[in-house]
Amino acid sequence: MNQLTQKTCVACRVGAPLATEEETNEFMSQLPNWDIVEENGINRLQRLISFNNFVDAMAFTQKVADLAEDENHHPAVLTEWGKVTVSWWTHKINGLHVNDFILAAKTDQL
Amino acid sequence: MNQLTQKTCVACRVGAPLATEEETNEFMSQLPNWDIVEENGINRLQRLISFNNFVDAMAFTQKVADLAEDENHHPAVLTEWGKVTVSWWTHKINGLHVNDFILAAKTDQL
Repeated sequence: MNQLTQKTCVACRVGAPLATEEETNEFMSQLPNWDIVEENGINRLQRLISFNNFVDAMAFTQKVADLAEDENHHPAVLTEWGKVTVSWWTHKINGLHVNDFILAAKTDQL
Repeated sequence: MNQLTQKTCVACRVGAPLATEEETNEFMSQLPNWDIVEENGINRLQRLISFNNFVDAMAFTQKVADLAEDENHHPAVLTEWGKVTVSWWTHKINGLHVNDFILAAKTDQL
């Protein structure tokens, strides 16, 4: 098993390859809570996580931010009362890199 | 002058009045950096603020969250690398209450 949570992000550059269909299928089988959502023609990995109030939602947002800094790869995080929506994608290649799947899996661990 | 930043949010309930057109015009003259954006048929006050990195953006998001808790009125805050988008509206009345304009003005002060 090619465990996403055991992987580390690799440095990504313009021109790096998008995740292949085979990789995407394999990784998504490990990410049952995530959807691939297209926004402005760019695929993003997206998950909504629910909380009991705004403070708990914000605390989770901070954990995601800390993870992002540790891995030097940054998501979009929408914080609202009782919910946080996390979206991972790779600006440099306008789509999903293996890094995005790794960080989705690590978000699940937070 | 009816300074928004001098006002305090009032308790809001289902059935409370939306801001009138006259109030909206007066308040918006004090909020040059904000737009009224319709999403799913509901007006929101929205501003995008730019930063030099993700950490600074996240620090601002935390300040907005602290303000929201102090006032017991909660926005949607989208945190990304180098930018934060803050949206204020009132769920209970599906639109803009005077509280939203007050908190937009207080967001500008952060």
